[in-house]
This record gives sequence, structure tokens and C-alpha cells, in this order.
Amino acid sequence: MHFTSERRLDDGVLEREFTLGEIPGILWTPGSASSSAPAPLILIGHPGGLHRMRPRLAARARHSAADGFAAATIELPGSGDRPRSAAAEQARADLHRALEAGEPVGEEIVDRLVLPLVDKAVPEWRTALDALLSLPEIDGPVGYSGGVISIGVRLAVVEPRISAAVLFAGSFVPRTIVEEARQVTIPLHVLLQWDDEGNDRQAALDLFDAFGAKEKTLHANMGGHTGVPQFAGDAAAQFFTRHLS
Amino acid sequence: MHFTSERRLDDGVLEREFTLGEIPGILWTPGSASSSAPAPLILIGHPGGLHRMRPRLAARARHSAADGFAAATIELPGSGDRPRSAAAEQARADLHRALEAGEPVGEEIVDRLVLPLVDKAVPEWRTALDALLSLPEIDGPVGYSGGVISIGVRLAVVEPRISAAVLFAGSFVPRTIVEEARQVTIPLHVLLQWDDEGNDRQAALDLFDAFGAKEKTLHANMGGHTGVPQFAGDAAAQFFTRHLS
Repeated sequence: MHFTSERRLDDGVLEREFTLGEIPGILWTPGSASSSAPAPLILIGHPGGLHRMRPRLAARARHSAADGFAAATIELPGSGDRPRSAAAEQARADLHRALEAGEPVGEEIVDRLVLPLVDKAVPEWRTALDALLSLPEIDGPVGYSGGVISIGVRLAVVEPRISAAVLFAGSFVPRTIVEEARQVTIPLHVLLQWDDEGNDRQAALDLFDAFGAKEKTLHANMGGHTGVPQFAGDAAAQFFTRHLS
Repeated sequence: MHFTSERRLDDGVLEREFTLGEIPGILWTPGSASSSAPAPLILIGHPGGLHRMRPRLAARARHSAADGFAAATIELPGSGDRPRSAAAEQARADLHRALEAGEPVGEEIVDRLVLPLVDKAVPEWRTALDALLSLPEIDGPVGYSGGVISIGVRLAVVEPRISAAVLFAGSFVPRTIVEEARQVTIPLHVLLQWDDEGNDRQAALDLFDAFGAKEKTLHANMGGHTGVPQFAGDAAAQFFTRHLS
């Protein structure tokens, strides 16, 4: 892990860009972190494209920092400045073709699009976690928040250091990931935008039903794909405060 | 409205029993109410049987009082000490017979059970609201919380003084009430116990979908029929604080 830039934001949060091999990432630590106890960490997921997503990611990170948490994210394979995969690009083109034609999106396309991404991304997030937890300013329980829900599911199953997760329903989920969801036992807080037209609501409900966790909560709200109400973001933050503090 | 008893609880809340004609009820006002501004009111719904439900109703009322709200409830028609309706008793017996036989509960039984209850209860709650809002210690916006969801739906449609509602999914809902739900435009916070075996989950989701409100939130949790987690109760209280304060 190699820090490449550092700046102090107006709320005192320290924002550092880093690279982890070829993977770019960003770490935000609370303003008080250098002088106080190490902070628990929230891994901030996203759909890919750090530059494009950065304002929203930074806003989530600063919200977390205000609650006393460090936050970090890394670029996804095949997104942003990272090399494209021809197979993933083909799967994405096939998906868009099906959507534009108004056809149902076949499981085969979803599998080709999502499963290789999960297989590649999850070990990267675990490697990032190794590096982040070696920093003196980070310690304690780890949460995972948002992004491609299939990555969140796999991480929750295979990574024992993650002790709570906020997941965003709304992307296509392969059937095998729904099966994996039955093995998830950490507390979950799932956000669903009820009126998100690009979202298969029934698939999201089926995935929520599959989770094996004893504490799982679904918060469904209005506002469209990107219109998560502020009170819903606040509720997700309260979930992390309950489980990571 | 005639007060029949009065006692001060250990948290300073004033608990008063009253009758409204033949209907018994209970009013809780915050400890500071006599010395400060009038409190907004939360009407506390329940499935019927004030005596049996009293500990849980009092706990909800005291939570509301701690947030600065008065809270009140009245007995439902045909419950507690109020006269039984032969037709309602017959419908309830038919319902139980269907459930015990493992048969699907026909719409005709649900209509016979719920619609006369809604038709009779809703005007009573509105009369109670008239009386409660005439008290000097109560003023401002009114919320409705819980109980038989069909009563909450009808109240939200016909009673303009109710400006926000927390509804508990889980009881049988006639099709005509689902149609009425499309006319509900006040902010809604709907609680659903996901693993409530006595609950028709799909019917609850269909009802949530039908609501015409721009701000509607569904919180689904684990814990069985009566096992609403404390954090879910806290979230419902925050909803009222956002909308009634």
C-alpha cells in the first residue's frame, strides 16, 4: 500500500489516495484519529468508476468519519483507469442490448457479467483490508457498505473480519450468489429503492429472504435509483454505530 | 370525554383513563406538559383488548412522551368490555376454522371480519380526536401508530388532521382497503415482521406498493409477530419526530 496524495478536508477528515499494486484507492480517517484511539473501518463499495463516484463516496466517507469511523474504497476490476476485460465488456454489451430491446435479461448474461467480477474483486478487497488493518490509525470491527450487492454477499461469506454490512439492492444477482446469501450470518441492513425502475424488485426481495442472518433489516424507500432519502442514509449510519462502535 | 382516573408514572408521565360515551380510552401526556407548550398527539392503535394490550401500549406511549408527544388510545368496537357483534364473532369463528383447517382464508371472510370494524371504529377515533384536540395540553400535528392496518388506512384517507402514520403490516386486508390505500398521501412508515408466520407477506408488500404517498418507507425485520426489534421501534419514533415536531 503506497500513499500517493494527502489532503485535509474542511471538516478535519484526512483524505489519502493510495495504490495497492495496480489498484487505486482512497482512505478517509476522522480528524481526531491521529490523537485518539484507532478507528473502526467501513469499506465503501460502489458500482465501479472511482472518479465519477468520488463526490458521493466522499460524502458517505465524511458522514462515517463524523460518526468516528475510518472509510476506504478501491477501484473495481475493469473500471476507471484499470484494464478492461474483453469478456466483461461483451457481457455488458449483451446486457444493454437485451435491456434496449425490452427483453428479459437471461441468467447466462448476468452470470457472465457478475461472477467474474465477484471472483476478481473480492480477493482484492481482502488484500486491501490486510493493508488497511496494518495501519496504526485503524483497528476494531469492519463494516462493508454498498456497491455491487453480489460483491457484498461474497465478502460477507468469506471474510470473517467483516462484522456488519449495509447492502444496496438493485443490481442483477446471479442465482449462485442468492445461494451463497444463505450462508451470510452477520447483521445486515439492506436498502431498496422501491420505485427504481431499473431494479428487479422481486429479485431483491428474494435475495433479502435468502440471507441467513438472524438480524436482517430491509429499508425500502421512494426516490428512484439514486434518490435514497437522507433519513435512510442516517438509519444506515445508525446501524453501523450499533454494530461497530 | 370524561376522565375516570389519573395517576402520575415514575417518569413523570400523566396517565388518565377516560370514557367517551360507552368507549373507554387512555391518555398519556408528557410530564412537562402542564408547564410548557401543548404537545402534538399520537393516536396509538392496537388489535383490540385494552386491558390485555395495556403494558405494550403504555410502553409505546411513554416512549412517545419522552419524545415530547401526548399519546392516546380507545377500545375497539367488539373488544374488551365493549358489546360483541354477533356478525363479527361469526366472521372470527369462520376465520379460525379456515386457519385451523389449513385452508386459504377467503376474501369474503376477510371482508366480513374487517370492513364492519373499520366502518365502526374510524368514526369513533375521529370523535376521540375531536375531544383530545379540545384539551389545552394537546395541540399541533397528529400521528397515527399501529394496530389494525385497515383502520389506519381508512383514517389516513378520511381524517385530514392526521399528518403522518406508522402502520404495522400483518393483519388481513380487504381488497377495497388496498384500493383506498392509493388515496393515502401522508408520509408513511410501515413495519413488517418478515418472519411472521401468521402474516401474508405478499399481501403486505402489495399494500405497501399501493400507497399513494410520495414518502413511504417499509422496514422489514426479523423476530416473529411480536418481536419488533428495539431499533425498529426507535426508527418509528424518529419518523414521528421528523414529521410531528
